[in-house]
Amino acid sequence: MKDMEDATSLIARMGEAARAASVELAVAPAECKRAALIAAAGAIRAATDTILAANARDLDFGRDKGLSDAMIDRLRLDADRLRGIEDGLRDVAEQRDPVGEVVAEWDRPNGLHIRRVRTPIGVIGVIYESRPNVTADAGALALKSGNAVILRGGSESLHSSGAIHDCMVQGLRQAGLPEAAIQLVPTRDRAAVSAMLQAQGLIDVIIPRGGKGLVGLVQREARVPVFAHLEGICHVYVDRDADPDKARRVVMNAKTRRTGICGAAECLLIDRAADPELRAALIADLVAAGVEVRAEGELADLPGTVAARPDDFGREFLDMVMAARLVDGVEDAIAHIRRFGSQHTESILTENDATAQRFMAGLESAILMHNASTQFADGGEFGMGAEIGIATGKMHARGPVGAEQLTSFKYLVSGDGAIRG
Amino acid sequence: MKDMEDATSLIARMGEAARAASVELAVAPAECKRAALIAAAGAIRAATDTILAANARDLDFGRDKGLSDAMIDRLRLDADRLRGIEDGLRDVAEQRDPVGEVVAEWDRPNGLHIRRVRTPIGVIGVIYESRPNVTADAGALALKSGNAVILRGGSESLHSSGAIHDCMVQGLRQAGLPEAAIQLVPTRDRAAVSAMLQAQGLIDVIIPRGGKGLVGLVQREARVPVFAHLEGICHVYVDRDADPDKARRVVMNAKTRRTGICGAAECLLIDRAADPELRAALIADLVAAGVEVRAEGELADLPGTVAARPDDFGREFLDMVMAARLVDGVEDAIAHIRRFGSQHTESILTENDATAQRFMAGLESAILMHNASTQFADGGEFGMGAEIGIATGKMHARGPVGAEQLTSFKYLVSGDGAIRG
Repeated sequence: MKDMEDATSLIARMGEAARAASVELAVAPAECKRAALIAAAGAIRAATDTILAANARDLDFGRDKGLSDAMIDRLRLDADRLRGIEDGLRDVAEQRDPVGEVVAEWDRPNGLHIRRVRTPIGVIGVIYESRPNVTADAGALALKSGNAVILRGGSESLHSSGAIHDCMVQGLRQAGLPEAAIQLVPTRDRAAVSAMLQAQGLIDVIIPRGGKGLVGLVQREARVPVFAHLEGICHVYVDRDADPDKARRVVMNAKTRRTGICGAAECLLIDRAADPELRAALIADLVAAGVEVRAEGELADLPGTVAARPDDFGREFLDMVMAARLVDGVEDAIAHIRRFGSQHTESILTENDATAQRFMAGLESAILMHNASTQFADGGEFGMGAEIGIATGKMHARGPVGAEQLTSFKYLVSGDGAIRG
Repeated sequence: MKDMEDATSLIARMGEAARAASVELAVAPAECKRAALIAAAGAIRAATDTILAANARDLDFGRDKGLSDAMIDRLRLDADRLRGIEDGLRDVAEQRDPVGEVVAEWDRPNGLHIRRVRTPIGVIGVIYESRPNVTADAGALALKSGNAVILRGGSESLHSSGAIHDCMVQGLRQAGLPEAAIQLVPTRDRAAVSAMLQAQGLIDVIIPRGGKGLVGLVQREARVPVFAHLEGICHVYVDRDADPDKARRVVMNAKTRRTGICGAAECLLIDRAADPELRAALIADLVAAGVEVRAEGELADLPGTVAARPDDFGREFLDMVMAARLVDGVEDAIAHIRRFGSQHTESILTENDATAQRFMAGLESAILMHNASTQFADGGEFGMGAEIGIATGKMHARGPVGAEQLTSFKYLVSGDGAIRG
């Protein structure tokens, strides 16, 4: 109870500082925000040793805590990864500034001229887990879009995130922007996450990036609007009218290019009416590449597969594992995905445009692909620049969430003494 | 406790029916939705007597309950108001259908063609108070945008809303659309409102339309995303560089054209450096029109004014009452509005474009007017068609909320066997 009180008053103080900073940021010139990001990149370069030393402390803490190798790997920084963070900051710096952009503009018979212009949202809260680079990425995107941000990194990355955050603040200072524009919650206390989720009036939107535990906490406790980031349970459906070469190429890429990203395919659906040779080839390719294919029904008779358990469908493996099932055409594929998917990204392989259209109309996923790999689910690949992640909710922003998606808008209306009749 | 359980299971049943209907609606042809709305308008015409009889029962109930005259007036239907409802349905029927519209489209060097297309949100919950016409208006906009809707009208309008709802369902039936596309919560039990606010996974967004009590309930209990509709505490600021004639015309219109709408001005801010004659004329106009001007400081010396109390600022009168205060130029006006406003609509009167620009940049309201009356805050006046209201939140939709604002979007991506390198 004491902890929760402390956390609530901490977040209240940070929220008020963020709100004050957001007023300045909303009218900060684009050049000024750009300069802050470039200065932050320089500060990261200059602080390489300090950041790596902080990271070493986090790695020690993580090993003591018994983190898995995969988590330790996410936590680890090295010179290359720091260079990546620096490049990311410079990339965001050079992106188009979305604030003030006139999205639509029209005249009315009542004499009014109406413009809809992009504005910052205000104060954004980002809750993330072990990767310390999010401190720089999320801070940069929030700043670019004129928002103040409160970052709450994983408890394992406290020192690394702190050292990176120091560099972001140096950038702000050098550009004459308020330091409270990018704040980092300075405690491992989990109560701070709850306090952020409940900070109505202080935080305008929460972006959670993490696993099932965080998603559940957000669902139970959030009072602040949330950009939902559910899992990426991505499906590939190979239709009876698929081109065999394209299908084999895309399925292999969707599963194996990188297995740990949210756009990696987790389930293969094959039309029962597809050529049995293609069916066999798709599975054989995966098996040969070292994928554990958890197959159902007749597919489980194919060499190298293992029998699927019911909970293998609707599961995000993030590994060299793929569930596989036969379906009765596109309608059955849609029904399967509606039941087991997470509204992230799905792909259909077919040369039949009507079937592709039906697939794309019948599903509500943020991204629907036709003859393309689910691994393209990425802001950079979409040409939208850096992103905080892929949102799967239906409100405000969905799909890749970059600087533009972190904006709201307002209407500016001009008349010449216009009164309503 | 028993009530809450009943309400939760009622809303769960309605939510599941709505979800199933929404799947059909998402792919329903535009013509089909149009036909349903036209048929519903015809059904309203045919059921005039039934609806008026139901309304008479509600009026009796309302009088017994001791409703104010203003509330009884909102509740009352007559032949004219029914004709207005019917016309509203036909207007929405003839509006452009937003679903499937390609909002943006581009090609990528990776060979992908990307389209962002409008989709329905899914299931919308609308919670409103006494006006029974909202049953038709909100039902029509939800249907136009391909969403299923769960309507929860005011307990006083139960019979009127029920009779109107019957007509909407007739329209759906005649067009071959699922009846659960438009459902009305069939109980006066307030627990149903709480159940809707907590129906995560069943309802995608809640649109609350009502006074402080409902707003507070939503803030405390909502688990589902909300399109915030706060009060319309609209300000008019008359700058030192205002044209006197325009200023007098706009202030009068903003306050007196209709006092009961959310776009009515509630507070007049006058630049201390403005011509004292203009200052006097603005107040004299209002007093002469019968407005109770609650003035502060020197303004309270002007004839016909009454002294303002501190809580007259930041207050939505919805009546022939206006707060008035002198401010020290545009920055002070901005500071006042930031403190007391509700981010709805504000207007500046000035011939100085730089000052107007500063006013529009420095405020976060959904609608900012320059030399125009706040009473233009209306979807119809904006050329956006019928609306459910003016949203003051910053997420997803703000300003006038019409059919287009009730949509989400998805990305449709086509390749030719494209794989990511």
